[in-house]
Amino acid sequence: MAKINENYLKLPKNYLFAEIGKRVTKFKAENPDAKIIQMGIGDVTQPLPKVCVDAMNKAVQEMSNSETFRGYGPEQGYNFLREKISEWNYKRRGIEISADEIFISDGSKCDCGNIQEIFSLDSKIAIADPVYPVYLDTNVMAGRTGDLNSDGRFDGVTYLPCTAENNFSPAPPKTKVDLIYLCSPNNPTGTTLDKTALKSWIEYAQKNNSVILYDAAYAAYISEENIPRSIYEIEGAKDVAIEFRSFSKTAGFTGTRCGYVVIPKNLCGTTSNGEKILLKNLWLRRQTTKFNGTAYIVQRGATAIYSDEGQSQVKSLIDYYMTNAKILLDGLKSVGLSAYGGINAPYIWLKVPKGFSSWDFFDYLLKNFNIVGTPGIGFGSCGEGYLRLTSFGKREKIFETVNRLKQFSETSFCQQRSES
Amino acid sequence: MAKINENYLKLPKNYLFAEIGKRVTKFKAENPDAKIIQMGIGDVTQPLPKVCVDAMNKAVQEMSNSETFRGYGPEQGYNFLREKISEWNYKRRGIEISADEIFISDGSKCDCGNIQEIFSLDSKIAIADPVYPVYLDTNVMAGRTGDLNSDGRFDGVTYLPCTAENNFSPAPPKTKVDLIYLCSPNNPTGTTLDKTALKSWIEYAQKNNSVILYDAAYAAYISEENIPRSIYEIEGAKDVAIEFRSFSKTAGFTGTRCGYVVIPKNLCGTTSNGEKILLKNLWLRRQTTKFNGTAYIVQRGATAIYSDEGQSQVKSLIDYYMTNAKILLDGLKSVGLSAYGGINAPYIWLKVPKGFSSWDFFDYLLKNFNIVGTPGIGFGSCGEGYLRLTSFGKREKIFETVNRLKQFSETSFCQQRSES
Repeated sequence: MAKINENYLKLPKNYLFAEIGKRVTKFKAENPDAKIIQMGIGDVTQPLPKVCVDAMNKAVQEMSNSETFRGYGPEQGYNFLREKISEWNYKRRGIEISADEIFISDGSKCDCGNIQEIFSLDSKIAIADPVYPVYLDTNVMAGRTGDLNSDGRFDGVTYLPCTAENNFSPAPPKTKVDLIYLCSPNNPTGTTLDKTALKSWIEYAQKNNSVILYDAAYAAYISEENIPRSIYEIEGAKDVAIEFRSFSKTAGFTGTRCGYVVIPKNLCGTTSNGEKILLKNLWLRRQTTKFNGTAYIVQRGATAIYSDEGQSQVKSLIDYYMTNAKILLDGLKSVGLSAYGGINAPYIWLKVPKGFSSWDFFDYLLKNFNIVGTPGIGFGSCGEGYLRLTSFGKREKIFETVNRLKQFSETSFCQQRSES
Repeated sequence: MAKINENYLKLPKNYLFAEIGKRVTKFKAENPDAKIIQMGIGDVTQPLPKVCVDAMNKAVQEMSNSETFRGYGPEQGYNFLREKISEWNYKRRGIEISADEIFISDGSKCDCGNIQEIFSLDSKIAIADPVYPVYLDTNVMAGRTGDLNSDGRFDGVTYLPCTAENNFSPAPPKTKVDLIYLCSPNNPTGTTLDKTALKSWIEYAQKNNSVILYDAAYAAYISEENIPRSIYEIEGAKDVAIEFRSFSKTAGFTGTRCGYVVIPKNLCGTTSNGEKILLKNLWLRRQTTKFNGTAYIVQRGATAIYSDEGQSQVKSLIDYYMTNAKILLDGLKSVGLSAYGGINAPYIWLKVPKGFSSWDFFDYLLKNFNIVGTPGIGFGSCGEGYLRLTSFGKREKIFETVNRLKQFSETSFCQQRSES
């Protein structure tokens, strides 16, 4: 038989969400009447904005007529969408990013997972801990790491701890790395990197010839004025950073699939001989060879959010989820639980009470309150002691969650805790 | 600057279709009144089948309502589509392929390009010549080949010549290879592999522990009864072959994006220690880590072809293109040109007249008849001396092409030819 890519076998066998599913299924079987509330999955629940629905209806009609039918589109996306993104997400915010620096895809997961292909296999990577697992896993699969250690970390990777102690804003490492994955607003902590933090990363990248891979999939959720929506708000970023954005959470496109990556036109990597190569050209080559563009219908839907009406509908959607976040955050605080995030992101990073591990508290919430969160440890070692709750649920479920948690002070657990 | 993946630089800088575009643009500038007919691009022109349009309209509506809205779908595709494929494309043809051996994607180009990731980087590959360039290019980019030689071939690759002499059906090589890319019906030759040919490949793979990567994206165009639609029609194939299929040409989805790959449940690769690993599990891991599923709306559209009405609409679409192929083939023959394909595939592989190279004849057709084909050399060394014409155009353009070619015998070229 043909030999396989053995790097795949380095990945842990138990998927986080599979393990959660197993425990929930077991609990349901033992407690068939329990009304479980899912607060764990980072998926939207509200329908697509009307402007998107209308645009997609129109596009489906175009596909039914031979005069307006569309076959293969450009692999890098239609200009009608790239132009709107350039205008609305960048130029109107004072950032000079042009349409030809924007590459449309079927979602940020693909972009974040595929981008590593254009870099050398011996690149040293640094990733936030905890963070969205795709950055690490795709590098493990490509062979850029050693084996998994008993502490849950891979050899050869520089982990950047994001903890309450450093305000979830890691400082650049002392050693040199080539590729740095940053996520702001961060999934799972819901925290952001401010201008000072990004400035220090850009300086580090300039000094060490690194490339920053900046995932801003949740940028639309930022409410505080001083937090950058794009890394390109910071001077020098265009020389060192690639940015990822998505329509998934912005416009409810998790099941509709559209995202994009920005590669500034002068951003280079080098060959081993020191020759400079434009990363934009490598990515275009990657996409033209391995990808055939995002569905025309979907790109029309995504384009529709770039109008006054579209922006207003997107804002309503985000307000809905962020009001959920506020209700949840207030509820958690009212019962004496500490939590981070939830201000500039739809994620709440709950500190589990003393004496509990992430998984202990997961089980405790499931058993006592029938609430399902996501154990922080699933996002990296530094996630131990936390649980991620999302605010993507429907409003009534958010209220119900808070009501259930209000019984918290009356539970035997709380008595235990106060006695200890 | 971070180091790049230098394998990308091994690829030829001039893209085939970019070069074609350049020559056509130049010709247009010099001949603004010329009415150019594009016969080069393998893209469909007819609208989507009505069943698909209706299903997508309905799906868009579902996305606009919070009760029926869909967020993230399963990375491997919705079961409603996988079940239909299993039933209509396999079980009804006597092939036992179940839904959980089918993985839905956003198109065969992605699948054919990504599949190599699950195999070892030192795998030896064999590819048909000429063939769809994605198989080779993605292996070059991954680092499985040496450099490009002056003969247009890469070191370290086993090329399988497909020529008129072997009836475009290559025999297995004498040496051992690990991965074999076969395409039937073949793009660009339009020819197919028959049962005897496939049997010899399966035997080779069994003997050499190889995996066959079988691209059947054009299977729906096969008209001759004795030509296999699926490699799994041949005994033993499930132990050695992965099959790729697509809705692109079957149902006009080139701009709508849906395809699938079949990985039989017992098909294995091995580790360097000889441990057997199910390829299906590796692919699932690849897809769950790097892909987020195909748009719900698109999967609903694809599902709609699996009904009596859907099949009838798909048949009309294919009949339209294959009638084009027949008109074109007859036209070519009537002016004394030799051509292959066009019976079980929408591609016609025109033998260029003696004394011409692929590019010479491309220029000649462009200049004298304002017809744009694709030079065969663009698909591999063995494509030299051929030109690919496609039958995806609109009927009136096909008739016009034939009319223009009928002036062929009167041209100075023909006089030159008869004099030589």
